Amino acid sequence: MPDPIDTNPQALAEAVRAGDRRALARAITLIESTRADHRASADALLAALLPHTGQSVRLGISGVPGVGKSTFIEAFGLHVIGLGHKVAVLAVDPSSQRTGGSILGDKTRMVDLSREANAFIRPSPAGATLGGVARRTREAMLICEAAGFDVILVETVGVGQSETAVADMVDLFMLLLLPAGGDELQGIKKGIVELADLVVVNKADGDLTATARHTVADYRHALMLLRHGDWRVPVLSCSAVHKIGVDEVWATIGAHRELTEANGQRDRRRAEQARAWLWSEIRETLIDRFRAHPAVRADLARLEDAVTQGAVIPTTAARALLGQFLGDAPPV
Amino acid sequence: MPDPIDTNPQALAEAVRAGDRRALARAITLIESTRADHRASADALLAALLPHTGQSVRLGISGVPGVGKSTFIEAFGLHVIGLGHKVAVLAVDPSSQRTGGSILGDKTRMVDLSREANAFIRPSPAGATLGGVARRTREAMLICEAAGFDVILVETVGVGQSETAVADMVDLFMLLLLPAGGDELQGIKKGIVELADLVVVNKADGDLTATARHTVADYRHALMLLRHGDWRVPVLSCSAVHKIGVDEVWATIGAHRELTEANGQRDRRRAEQARAWLWSEIRETLIDRFRAHPAVRADLARLEDAVTQGAVIPTTAARALLGQFLGDAPPV
Repeated sequence: MPDPIDTNPQALAEAVRAGDRRALARAITLIESTRADHRASADALLAALLPHTGQSVRLGISGVPGVGKSTFIEAFGLHVIGLGHKVAVLAVDPSSQRTGGSILGDKTRMVDLSREANAFIRPSPAGATLGGVARRTREAMLICEAAGFDVILVETVGVGQSETAVADMVDLFMLLLLPAGGDELQGIKKGIVELADLVVVNKADGDLTATARHTVADYRHALMLLRHGDWRVPVLSCSAVHKIGVDEVWATIGAHRELTEANGQRDRRRAEQARAWLWSEIRETLIDRFRAHPAVRADLARLEDAVTQGAVIPTTAARALLGQFLGDAPPV
Repeated sequence: MPDPIDTNPQALAEAVRAGDRRALARAITLIESTRADHRASADALLAALLPHTGQSVRLGISGVPGVGKSTFIEAFGLHVIGLGHKVAVLAVDPSSQRTGGSILGDKTRMVDLSREANAFIRPSPAGATLGGVARRTREAMLICEAAGFDVILVETVGVGQSETAVADMVDLFMLLLLPAGGDELQGIKKGIVELADLVVVNKADGDLTATARHTVADYRHALMLLRHGDWRVPVLSCSAVHKIGVDEVWATIGAHRELTEANGQRDRRRAEQARAWLWSEIRETLIDRFRAHPAVRADLARLEDAVTQGAVIPTTAARALLGQFLGDAPPV
């Protein structure tokens, strides 16, 4: 059997565009590879596909374990496919932070959706840092767009730093909440609610119906006070397991798209995201190289400890380490 | 007249510790200098002072122009001095972002406070980037501590990115609000309320008394929902111009200090701040060097434009620029 990703990038690009699902999977495996020759092919592949990207609705979705995220994505994906769309689901979660649900495998979590011809589900790549996963997901999103998927869902767990990365790559960031009082009780990290363009209280059914209604009212009130820009962050409720309210979520996403396309905000957000992506690539690579430098590796732990214990000023420690890396300053 | 900062660092450190105000001002001028030989002296000075730092209450204070920040700081500073403390006021605002109030000069804004023997007011250094200002302010804070100031106020305007920098260098970050409805109306940027450990609605007097009460209730409700950790962010009101409620602000700061000293949170926050400061120094220096590289300077604008217009993938552009800087990749 030949190397599954040892393919002419132009030929692969054409197969992706023609809707060949094996080519799509192979293209994503190619951009996930860390081999230098693969990276050159990946660049060529992405350059060939780039003119055919950008037409999808890019959605981020986050929520703590237990909020019913897989159930929601399945109900939402099936609803949207029923309206004639093609849905791709990508995951952003560094392997070290993965929770029970994800370990079972993304496809196991969404049995009905994974059987759909117009759905494509791609688990998070294993063994990568957040920066690496975010880059691959951004590139995978472009490949899915070139393959004709017009709704892309990027999912993440609402407990860490990956939410910012996801909000920085989508047109609309959606946060799923439990019917319960307050961020802390729900296990949502500080600052994540503020990233949301849309808040959805799930499990609004049965005994939790009244609690869900209170949660909606509370968050509506809080977000009205903290809101910014033309878009008033809506707080909706739904019951993904009973497929109630999912249509309203999709309608609200449509309203957001209409508004932000009309006022130019979507294009500005995407241009800003591209610029931020460029700089995050640059920063991360520089830091990786810095950390990998032999003299830095030898001294970093000691100086980091000295700094946190207040024995050395951070500026002094930084100058010493940078001197080793850049070759022009004295040791501490 | 000799170079005012051409001084033996050890002698300068001793004069600072002895309470010599001219030595204090000279020490801060030294750490603000960008000359390489000054930087070496500054490092020696800071190393000598470091064992005598850390005992102050480090407070950040932010609020949009018009909220009455100078009036508040003056009333607050005089109150705290009246209780026997020594107060230093430092500013963090890159010169490019300075507003009318600051241009008049910080001392002009706080006439009574600036006359106090136990007050020290230092305007923001001119012509520096946010990273530069933040570094100098952190270092100035240490110098003020070594000089015996036990309450340090770091002020910033609540409209930009400097709030995060300030929240990252203090024990408690205080946000002043106007009696008015919502962040957007007040001109507060997204995410700044969430940085606050304490919210104070100023101008709670005269015709605005009732509005202030509503604003307190609204923010109390919103912050209760979004709160995290052991500390429930208090929302107080005051009238700085009438010196009403300033004592309660100080009492609340004392309660915060007691709690966070007892549960270890203050020490953890300071250790984490020192580590973050180290990494921000490293990141900023690496990016500065990258930007200053001749080949990067020649190509950066073109590639940044191509990236924001969607003509080149950010990863590809980053690799091309990094290759020029690090010497190992092909041009785009």
